[in-house]
Amino acid sequence: MRLTEEQLSFYDEQGYLLIPGCFPRAEMETLSAELPKIFAEDSLRRVVEKNRNVVRSVYGSHLHNEAFDILSRHPRLVLPTMQILDSEVYVYQFKVNAKASFNGDIWEWHQDYIFWHREDGMPQDRVTSVAIFIDDVTEFNGPLFLIPGSHREGVIENLVPDRAAAVKASDAYEGSPAWINNLTADLKYSLNKEIIAKLVAKYGIVSPKGPSGSILFFHGNLVHGSTNNISPFDRVAVIVTFNSIENVPVPVSAPRPEFLVSRDPRPVTPVSENALLSLSRD
Amino acid sequence: MRLTEEQLSFYDEQGYLLIPGCFPRAEMETLSAELPKIFAEDSLRRVVEKNRNVVRSVYGSHLHNEAFDILSRHPRLVLPTMQILDSEVYVYQFKVNAKASFNGDIWEWHQDYIFWHREDGMPQDRVTSVAIFIDDVTEFNGPLFLIPGSHREGVIENLVPDRAAAVKASDAYEGSPAWINNLTADLKYSLNKEIIAKLVAKYGIVSPKGPSGSILFFHGNLVHGSTNNISPFDRVAVIVTFNSIENVPVPVSAPRPEFLVSRDPRPVTPVSENALLSLSRD
Repeated sequence: MRLTEEQLSFYDEQGYLLIPGCFPRAEMETLSAELPKIFAEDSLRRVVEKNRNVVRSVYGSHLHNEAFDILSRHPRLVLPTMQILDSEVYVYQFKVNAKASFNGDIWEWHQDYIFWHREDGMPQDRVTSVAIFIDDVTEFNGPLFLIPGSHREGVIENLVPDRAAAVKASDAYEGSPAWINNLTADLKYSLNKEIIAKLVAKYGIVSPKGPSGSILFFHGNLVHGSTNNISPFDRVAVIVTFNSIENVPVPVSAPRPEFLVSRDPRPVTPVSENALLSLSRD
Repeated sequence: MRLTEEQLSFYDEQGYLLIPGCFPRAEMETLSAELPKIFAEDSLRRVVEKNRNVVRSVYGSHLHNEAFDILSRHPRLVLPTMQILDSEVYVYQFKVNAKASFNGDIWEWHQDYIFWHREDGMPQDRVTSVAIFIDDVTEFNGPLFLIPGSHREGVIENLVPDRAAAVKASDAYEGSPAWINNLTADLKYSLNKEIIAKLVAKYGIVSPKGPSGSILFFHGNLVHGSTNNISPFDRVAVIVTFNSIENVPVPVSAPRPEFLVSRDPRPVTPVSENALLSLSRD
């Protein structure tokens, strides 16, 4: 799959690009079938929701699960990303966001790149994420809200103060490593409400929705968030972040674990178009 | 304003009826201008959000504020309600729900009538509410989710257990009267997730949206809820509940305060069509 000039221009201007129904349902079912295993793993890779015994996210599953490994190297993700970043790319972060029915909590308004820049030493915002909708995304199950065009503002420094305290106050994360506040509903680099009001007045909000198998590319500096999910429908999405091999982070004193952010910049080699289907036939 | 046969049939079948843009913006601005006063009152009528210093709801404002008194007797609310309930009606409950920008919390899935039946002795579900949208309601600011047709199930007894404990655990409500758990995000008679999944599989979900001045009639047994509001847009709505004068509650041992639920069943006399506009010209 190759993006057209129109699609690339849209991404440049708006900071996102939705491709509805990119993966057929059978391929999504292959991935869906792996979720119970992934969610059952009791490890640091798994983050639970605040105050509830429900999985929020699982990180780095491509490192030890064949189906997710194939997804992370799938040509429908990798080739468009190479066009967007205009270079070879490597998998920088891989996560499954559960946004579980009835229990999925919010993601506060934030940009992703500031985490990778400040925590991990990534030099530039030449980085893009792809959300793969495992479930249908509707107006009812906590879809992503994006502020289109906000990536053009660069890194926004208008942050909510004192987030570390909010995370510490929650019993759910007692004894967790310091980086846990990069991953919970009390997010370390959340944007404050004054700047969000200004950005929304300038750019508006969009909420790309689509059936299972749709994919959404979004820029590392695009401001985004999501509400909680009170519906009876799970809204599982995999988010694969690809970094340009020309944008490798500099060394930092306390690097986060490899399952959270990779320090292995070897370029991805795409798998074959039908690799996911072949797997489900094994 | 009179409802057509088609509108009445729709309400009977679906349990709700949206009339977009029923009140002109100037009338909504008259009400909006009263909100700072209403929200600033430090009294039992005002309920704050859990963990936050933000107003969630204010009850009984029609008893002491002229604009809201006029609204509660407005012919565009009263006449359709008399058609729906096929009798004269009185104002049973009046509240302003703030659903504030950035902070408005969820309303769990519930039916209203079970509160009025169990707490207040209301004999039948011959009662309807009208939500008046003071602000625009969009997909972004925590719109109401309804399960259309669910009112036909009658009172549903599949409740979440032990809600009183959840409310007591929140510092925000320390020292509050017992009825506070009828009004907070940990709602006393919340429906459990198994029954919601079943009802949604049977009936679906709808989310009526519309500009400021739209009104939404909904049945006392219609299952509904709403997500939090992470957008920079307030979503203030007034909800006036009208009861049939032939459905007056029986006496109970510990009646809730008059500002929460009225025990005065004198029928409403509608004001003139332009009463709200006349007020703003005074």
